Amino acid sequence: MNSFTNDYSEGAHPSILKALAKANLEQNDGYGLDIHSLQATKLIREHVGDDKAEVIYLSGGTQTNQLAISCALRPHMACIAATTGHIAVHETGAIEATGHKVVTVEPIDGKLTPELIEPVLVDHYFEHMVLPKMVYISNPTELGTVYNKKELEDLYSFCQNKGLILYCDGARLGCALDAEKGKLTLQDIYNNTDAFFIGGTKIGALLGEALVIKKAEMKEDIRYLTKQRGALLAKGSLLGIQFETLMSNGLYAELSRKTNAGAQKIVKAMKELGFQFLLSSPTNQIFPILDNALIEKLEKKYAFYVWEKMDNQQSAIRLVTSWATPEQQIDQFIEDLKNLQ
Amino acid sequence: MNSFTNDYSEGAHPSILKALAKANLEQNDGYGLDIHSLQATKLIREHVGDDKAEVIYLSGGTQTNQLAISCALRPHMACIAATTGHIAVHETGAIEATGHKVVTVEPIDGKLTPELIEPVLVDHYFEHMVLPKMVYISNPTELGTVYNKKELEDLYSFCQNKGLILYCDGARLGCALDAEKGKLTLQDIYNNTDAFFIGGTKIGALLGEALVIKKAEMKEDIRYLTKQRGALLAKGSLLGIQFETLMSNGLYAELSRKTNAGAQKIVKAMKELGFQFLLSSPTNQIFPILDNALIEKLEKKYAFYVWEKMDNQQSAIRLVTSWATPEQQIDQFIEDLKNLQ
Amino acid sequence: MNSFTNDYSEGAHPSILKALAKANLEQNDGYGLDIHSLQATKLIREHVGDDKAEVIYLSGGTQTNQLAISCALRPHMACIAATTGHIAVHETGAIEATGHKVVTVEPIDGKLTPELIEPVLVDHYFEHMVLPKMVYISNPTELGTVYNKKELEDLYSFCQNKGLILYCDGARLGCALDAEKGKLTLQDIYNNTDAFFIGGTKIGALLGEALVIKKAEMKEDIRYLTKQRGALLAKGSLLGIQFETLMSNGLYAELSRKTNAGAQKIVKAMKELGFQFLLSSPTNQIFPILDNALIEKLEKKYAFYVWEKMDNQQSAIRLVTSWATPEQQIDQFIEDLKNLQ
Amino acid sequence: MNSFTNDYSEGAHPSILKALAKANLEQNDGYGLDIHSLQATKLIREHVGDDKAEVIYLSGGTQTNQLAISCALRPHMACIAATTGHIAVHETGAIEATGHKVVTVEPIDGKLTPELIEPVLVDHYFEHMVLPKMVYISNPTELGTVYNKKELEDLYSFCQNKGLILYCDGARLGCALDAEKGKLTLQDIYNNTDAFFIGGTKIGALLGEALVIKKAEMKEDIRYLTKQRGALLAKGSLLGIQFETLMSNGLYAELSRKTNAGAQKIVKAMKELGFQFLLSSPTNQIFPILDNALIEKLEKKYAFYVWEKMDNQQSAIRLVTSWATPEQQIDQFIEDLKNLQ
Repeated sequence: MNSFTNDYSEGAHPSILKALAKANLEQNDGYGLDIHSLQATKLIREHVGDDKAEVIYLSGGTQTNQLAISCALRPHMACIAATTGHIAVHETGAIEATGHKVVTVEPIDGKLTPELIEPVLVDHYFEHMVLPKMVYISNPTELGTVYNKKELEDLYSFCQNKGLILYCDGARLGCALDAEKGKLTLQDIYNNTDAFFIGGTKIGALLGEALVIKKAEMKEDIRYLTKQRGALLAKGSLLGIQFETLMSNGLYAELSRKTNAGAQKIVKAMKELGFQFLLSSPTNQIFPILDNALIEKLEKKYAFYVWEKMDNQQSAIRLVTSWATPEQQIDQFIEDLKNLQ
Repeated sequence: MNSFTNDYSEGAHPSILKALAKANLEQNDGYGLDIHSLQATKLIREHVGDDKAEVIYLSGGTQTNQLAISCALRPHMACIAATTGHIAVHETGAIEATGHKVVTVEPIDGKLTPELIEPVLVDHYFEHMVLPKMVYISNPTELGTVYNKKELEDLYSFCQNKGLILYCDGARLGCALDAEKGKLTLQDIYNNTDAFFIGGTKIGALLGEALVIKKAEMKEDIRYLTKQRGALLAKGSLLGIQFETLMSNGLYAELSRKTNAGAQKIVKAMKELGFQFLLSSPTNQIFPILDNALIEKLEKKYAFYVWEKMDNQQSAIRLVTSWATPEQQIDQFIEDLKNLQ
Repeated sequence: MNSFTNDYSEGAHPSILKALAKANLEQNDGYGLDIHSLQATKLIREHVGDDKAEVIYLSGGTQTNQLAISCALRPHMACIAATTGHIAVHETGAIEATGHKVVTVEPIDGKLTPELIEPVLVDHYFEHMVLPKMVYISNPTELGTVYNKKELEDLYSFCQNKGLILYCDGARLGCALDAEKGKLTLQDIYNNTDAFFIGGTKIGALLGEALVIKKAEMKEDIRYLTKQRGALLAKGSLLGIQFETLMSNGLYAELSRKTNAGAQKIVKAMKELGFQFLLSSPTNQIFPILDNALIEKLEKKYAFYVWEKMDNQQSAIRLVTSWATPEQQIDQFIEDLKNLQ
Repeated sequence: MNSFTNDYSEGAHPSILKALAKANLEQNDGYGLDIHSLQATKLIREHVGDDKAEVIYLSGGTQTNQLAISCALRPHMACIAATTGHIAVHETGAIEATGHKVVTVEPIDGKLTPELIEPVLVDHYFEHMVLPKMVYISNPTELGTVYNKKELEDLYSFCQNKGLILYCDGARLGCALDAEKGKLTLQDIYNNTDAFFIGGTKIGALLGEALVIKKAEMKEDIRYLTKQRGALLAKGSLLGIQFETLMSNGLYAELSRKTNAGAQKIVKAMKELGFQFLLSSPTNQIFPILDNALIEKLEKKYAFYVWEKMDNQQSAIRLVTSWATPEQQIDQFIEDLKNLQ
């Protein structure tokens, strides 16, 4: 079965496997104090333009969200997220498990704006309600859409005025940067958030996310908090080596480009074939609308999620590509579409 | 610097790297539902002799302890551990962070016995105190000592009589099995605990621990609980492939043997040279007692921890070997000892 | 200022003060093991018709909700509540602070039905989402509306079929029973929930809620859980004496009747004067719709909340009466309405 | 049975009952914003000499300890307490339930000193261990002993130098002040701690503890945190009226004096009769050593705890008096001792 189900079906980019093999018998310091983690951090600091940026390497997105959110909040504080936000729906209450309510807001195309957040602040006006203190966004969002630089600047400026911490889930951050290539950089993300993470799992790594923290209060004792969450790997070099590789020679950007390219090739072809989309996504998650009969035929050969029923005849499906999705699989899908339509 | 600091300095056994490379471009199901994880589970079930055993693959020991302990306890219940137990001292309060008190007992050579636990049950007799409901042990212990089959049977029988859950931290489980080779098997561990984990990180894996659960109440919804703790890796095959490899062709036993062998070679040589030890450890962590002057000389060439001051002249040091510690480094250390003594 | 703000402005019913004074110098056992608590429990068990019912006396509603909900759920389980439910909005995230997500449903007049809950169960279908395990309702609801016997039976039957625990917040339970007098009893509440509480604070006590538990799993070790939450009063007789008094000689019913009567007298008068209401409430919280000009005039003499803006000219206000609201204050308010209208 | 079991057997001092009755039908603001709570706070601020002191009224000691400790710590921080400390043994893991480890130290006569705490700081030196950030003491201690002014000053000075927060459980604070009358005042307690509480339950109130906070970081949003813990009483005036009464006309000091006087009268008489004591306590908890045969005889007439077995023939018992213990009961006990000895 050819999979368009997600972007974590395959393993790591070959140059990562090569780097792991090369360093395999080195005797490295444990718990993220190895030379590779230090070097990866040096590279990330260069990318974000601040040699004081704190960088912590973690195993997955939910773990990273838990750490970043819980390290910043006192018990009565809450995190605002879109109703579609990953922490709001697909992390099995991981944030609530740290004691914090997630206050949800209906987003526009998966994105939050100052206008959408403002009413939450007005509503939560006294001590019988949680105190919203953080805003969680994903870039790209869970719907594949992207915050551009202006949108991020506006949101961050709003958050700063309101005393809110802005945190960005970057599980697929490279895809957002690629979609806004030349207009949005890692440094822009850093400048316009208090903390964010650079997703590795979905952009070429075996596993790994790099949490980047700008806000001083969140940096404090972060290694204690990481260890307490069971998130400090003994063989921390495993993450360090991967991010050292991803952050060198433009590999992260190149894999992000490939990740988007597959899906966007399909978008282009489907638009030419006259298909509609649930929304316009410039990244690797796309939501074309198909006749149910066509969906059934495609399901015999391809794996993907049926996302939303449009009416009795049509549904939106979700197609996801990764840096490793074979070019041939993409071309064949387009070909099949033409023939089956 | 030649390291005897720990058993997680190096990467993975070459056959693991090979297996990862081989499966790298497969499109596997996510979140531990891939064929490799399923196969690893099949192998582990064969080893423990129960095809109903639940197996969950996790990233590290602290994470595994948190999940196993918190999944079994209601809020007022506590876990009994040795004062030297990893959860009691070196996990930054990870168990307390899940809401549960760790009640400590002074162990004998790092080990707990029914006689040591009994008074805790007597003391905790009413609702103004926590309710001890679980016993945490490590095998081998944090001091390198090993519970033999009889000790485990006695402890488990005691726990069952008292309504206590017995959980075994097996970060170096292979080393215990190797030390008791022919007398203690994975199936014995399974039969005499409610849950335990098979440590991968310290026995040849890049990372990974396999939590094996026998007790029905702990199995229930375990995947929900794993996800909620941020512990369900998207690319779960990374762990599945490694355990599939470790559990095949006797690799886990072979690496465990190597892990112990290095340290025990040093033990043998040092005994012949007349050195004393803090305690008798048959595994890969050993605690020889040396003159401080000798320690200083050795520190110029080797990395290790000074564990405990014996008197003004002597200290116990901790030496740890791994499956990857070069034979040559071990021989050189023994040679140097002879010359420096 | 004459207050219609809430039903906890005044102290306790005189017969409660008298009972406290009478028992004041007795030497009672601590922590709820005193003869008065035992007698109160005996009386409550008679009311609910089960001498195995567990009864725990607590200080307030939020504390009671926290205990009842957290004692019943494993970490990944969630509680379903109306968006207007007290735990969802006005308890500062107290339930999330115990680690559990509150999944909200848009209610009808503040009430939940099987039809409203069903989609939540369908949506939460796998381990990446919390597992809904409990349903929280209030009777009367936060909008003053009441679940009748049939509605409760239907809801409980649905919950039992779905493996859901049904828990009822009865902060003003007497008001619901009074509104359904002759058709809904304390025993009906007990028979159609797994646990509920009998509110004392708002029905004549200085403070105190009696949590009544039917479900065996929630009873287990409940005193441990109560103590752990800081909810086991040293002088437990303070609560025991009050509930002993409330549960004797029909006092609870009588005070509930008075609590409702004041508000309903206003309802009757306002209907005759032609006023509309936001919704039809048969209890002590009512929501008449008034011209803003009239509201302003009333605010000079009476304290109450403006609840909801209807349009530019009119708003709904909330009026609340208690057993202690002076008859004269009610009559004067009606009189003033006639004059000011 | 005449009880020397504890100091919470009886109800409230008559002047408190009188004050409650007097204010009973007032319409007071809820949640601690009533005029009585405000007045009580004004009085406490005068006592401690700081009109910026934050005062929060709570229902019991465990609840107060939970709030005070959890409001001050980030997740990885721990609280140091004596092994005999109430939070360490008799609160069912209430502090761990908020996620924080309690690190225990063997005290001297129930008391902590800088010398006893220092090694804990040395031991907890890196991120694999919790970070001790707070010191919990009780004054009087659980053994009835008292910190004098010099001891408090030394301890607070040490804590400030080490960046530790000093918090004092004052469940029986009046007894400590009475024992050190003229040498230790409420203002001294305030000056030499970051936060403490004035116990009401055990000194004449029906229930209630007044948490007094000096440290700015702990004051912040304290009403949110109180509400979230289910600790903000709707009828907050119940606590306000009691503390208004206790803090007026020297009532708290007078009741504290009476509380100590009973026990100390017994101490004096027993010393004259030649009895030994487990330790020297100047407050209302005393620990005389008696022959087991004598204990048996006394148990027929008096209720008290057998505290500790001294040898096969003798045990220490605990006798506790309250402000309400009848003078006659005390005299009779002394008389009986003389006759039974």
